[in-house]
Amino acid sequence: MELGLPGGPGPAEPGPRLRGLRGEDRAASASSVSQAEAEAGRRAPSVAAVLPAGGSGERMGVPTPKQFCPILERPLISYTLQALERVCWIKDIVVAVTGENMEVMKDIIQRYQHKHISLVEAGVTRHRSIFNALKALAEDQPNSKLAKPEVVIIHDAVRPFVEEGVLLEVVIAAKEHGAAGAIRPLVSTVISPSVDGCLDYSLERARHRASEMPQAFLFDVIYEAYQQVEIYLKIISLTWSELENSPFLGKAKCSDYDLEFGTECLQLALKYCHTKAKLVEGSPDLWKVTYKRDLYAAESIIKERISQQICIVMDAKEDEEHLGHCLEEMLRKELNHVKVTSGALCHADRHLQQIILEPCYNFVCVNVMTSDFEETQKLLNMLEKSNLSILYPVVVISVHFLDCKSVPFGQKMEHLMQIRELAKEVKKRNILLCGLLIYYPQDKQRLQESLRQGAAIIATLIKERNAGLVGQLLIA
Amino acid sequence: MELGLPGGPGPAEPGPRLRGLRGEDRAASASSVSQAEAEAGRRAPSVAAVLPAGGSGERMGVPTPKQFCPILERPLISYTLQALERVCWIKDIVVAVTGENMEVMKDIIQRYQHKHISLVEAGVTRHRSIFNALKALAEDQPNSKLAKPEVVIIHDAVRPFVEEGVLLEVVIAAKEHGAAGAIRPLVSTVISPSVDGCLDYSLERARHRASEMPQAFLFDVIYEAYQQVEIYLKIISLTWSELENSPFLGKAKCSDYDLEFGTECLQLALKYCHTKAKLVEGSPDLWKVTYKRDLYAAESIIKERISQQICIVMDAKEDEEHLGHCLEEMLRKELNHVKVTSGALCHADRHLQQIILEPCYNFVCVNVMTSDFEETQKLLNMLEKSNLSILYPVVVISVHFLDCKSVPFGQKMEHLMQIRELAKEVKKRNILLCGLLIYYPQDKQRLQESLRQGAAIIATLIKERNAGLVGQLLIA
Repeated sequence: MELGLPGGPGPAEPGPRLRGLRGEDRAASASSVSQAEAEAGRRAPSVAAVLPAGGSGERMGVPTPKQFCPILERPLISYTLQALERVCWIKDIVVAVTGENMEVMKDIIQRYQHKHISLVEAGVTRHRSIFNALKALAEDQPNSKLAKPEVVIIHDAVRPFVEEGVLLEVVIAAKEHGAAGAIRPLVSTVISPSVDGCLDYSLERARHRASEMPQAFLFDVIYEAYQQVEIYLKIISLTWSELENSPFLGKAKCSDYDLEFGTECLQLALKYCHTKAKLVEGSPDLWKVTYKRDLYAAESIIKERISQQICIVMDAKEDEEHLGHCLEEMLRKELNHVKVTSGALCHADRHLQQIILEPCYNFVCVNVMTSDFEETQKLLNMLEKSNLSILYPVVVISVHFLDCKSVPFGQKMEHLMQIRELAKEVKKRNILLCGLLIYYPQDKQRLQESLRQGAAIIATLIKERNAGLVGQLLIA
Repeated sequence: MELGLPGGPGPAEPGPRLRGLRGEDRAASASSVSQAEAEAGRRAPSVAAVLPAGGSGERMGVPTPKQFCPILERPLISYTLQALERVCWIKDIVVAVTGENMEVMKDIIQRYQHKHISLVEAGVTRHRSIFNALKALAEDQPNSKLAKPEVVIIHDAVRPFVEEGVLLEVVIAAKEHGAAGAIRPLVSTVISPSVDGCLDYSLERARHRASEMPQAFLFDVIYEAYQQVEIYLKIISLTWSELENSPFLGKAKCSDYDLEFGTECLQLALKYCHTKAKLVEGSPDLWKVTYKRDLYAAESIIKERISQQICIVMDAKEDEEHLGHCLEEMLRKELNHVKVTSGALCHADRHLQQIILEPCYNFVCVNVMTSDFEETQKLLNMLEKSNLSILYPVVVISVHFLDCKSVPFGQKMEHLMQIRELAKEVKKRNILLCGLLIYYPQDKQRLQESLRQGAAIIATLIKERNAGLVGQLLIA
């Protein structure tokens, strides 16, 4: 997972891929387009995203709505916003939240520095929330920075792992077909119960799919569909004689069910705009955080993703033979799924600057040439300036070596105990600092064993990322 | 989660609840039963369970079939077996595994001491595996200990969290209706794609359900259904002229699809035995471990379940004012979702014996009155005898107090370093030993703060249950 900064590297804007489509393919698509429209279609569409986030999360079994449940102390919806805002061609993200959560949402946007977000008030159902967001995009209000997009993505606040690739796919398909949505194979057989609670029939699993998110629509298609639904709702609030004289009568084609209980936007586009959505196979990552176990899974996935890279920081004066390099070598050997890089803390080291920009959330800081925590303190100062720990807790392991011949163990331990105060201080800035004291025996084989143990402890600290162990001094 | 020992406390056998059914209810059920049959039905049915475990787990994206993927170093299928074998009224569990995994499965049964398990060879599809298991239950082979049950449960090897309650429900419903299965609400809308990959139609979510496991059948119903399918398959291997003269012709009602690709046993019972399955609402716990993220979720759930109880072990000589009791009090206060019990290690303490039988997987051992590790060593010896760590890693935290006035910090640390060797030794027996040194300042408020920090560290160690930190001495 990358930092939520828009403008990062990624696939190109939707334009170039659209330009690759031949005229014949487009003519063969469900909606017939004129030559002029086809011409216009070759330009990259303007894209906005809508995120309904008004749900109560009752299935989760916790009082907090699931989109606000914390994962590594950050609300779930912030991860989803991060996934959308790093896509440079999504111009605006409109989030629909209930009035009571409006302030919470504003705090989240400010605290995690989200960009391009507009808030609208959620409706009582998911459809009404989406419609409110679409209205905000449709209207050219004087003070609004929002402009009507050509294509609108609809996504869920509780699907944080959406990738740019599938967003691009649904946008391109929506541009061509008017509507598109991600699907997945069914995990369970779907059955229909009879009124007495017995099996009526079961569906052939291979012929059905689960409809997931994201979905995308030509803005005019989905907006028209929702307007049709609203017309119907206006009608049913009329009296019968009013209804007979209503100009809306001919347009009514919707049931209450659609807007109040249905959740499928693709179905609305089909029913009210005769637009057959293109279905796009999604990856398992698109899954929806629904139950408490999904929060556990999401936390594990996020922890795993930010543990894929370790940066070893050591003094530039260290020569090739030195302990820092030996530890680096051991980490490469023992944690072979992890990318291990190293750098020095001199201002000239652009490599390390690059790592912090990349970003990497795990640092092993070797203190050999310098006195106790000098090197670690320099790293902590640098991290503080980088804002790296805004989105994820950053693990810093301050490594020290104990040569028992020159310094008694107890004395060294007492010296290193100051890590407790240091850790308490940086914890406030979401940096998890631990110490690691590695025995430094003269015997080469035993040294290797110490380093191996050290690597195992580093792996554990990075994997668990647990605030409960900050300030501890572990021994290898 | 309890130890996988059959005969533990739980709901009564299925008999009593069946006896509660009135004759009219039974007569109104789909299968018409004679008076004599109704009489027989009031007895508790004999029940066996079938576990198809021949799958390759390709959706998981890992080379190991998912039922053999480790959670806390124990294969997933062992948790499912544990869930079934703790239900005292399930007499036999028949597991279908592929030839190449037969030895792996035998090792699992032996290593985790599973009881009442019989193995049969899996077929190339799930249905063929189930049928093989049913045949083993149907045949009275001379050397077989298996007897034909009245009701058979079919479950998945990858649904480890099944509770006795839902097993009982499906068995009672199967006894009455001939077939029954657990269902859950749909999480996503189900749609049907057209041949060109566009939306054909979407199903109304409220009128459909996901068919889950467990399911249960009158043995004769499901066995008859599978036999019908087999008859059909024999037919299609005949030539056309042979088929015309075949006595099976009239019985053929099945498609290849049913047996080779279908997965729904309830549908087979409906199609071949006209038995309409009763549908039983299941809990979210019934979910199927399908993707890698489900393994993460399962591990978190299991860790959470075995972290609900802490036993504090201290010398019986400790008086009420003592540090052990202060720590106990702090743990109760800080970990208010955790059950905290305490006991002493004298032979007379039946309470502690009971805790080990209950079982509890987390021990905090206070060493105050005794020299360094005496109390901890006694506890470790006791745990070794109890076999408690066969199913789950047991966390033991050896607690020590440091009165800086009487002993220098460095000296105390050096003494306590022997925990590293002790931890290495007991790790082989799946016991995760850590040390915790709590500062003991004279100031009462500062002591409370030390104890609070100690409680936080204990909570972390128990929650994470990470082998990478064994032998460490943490400081509060």
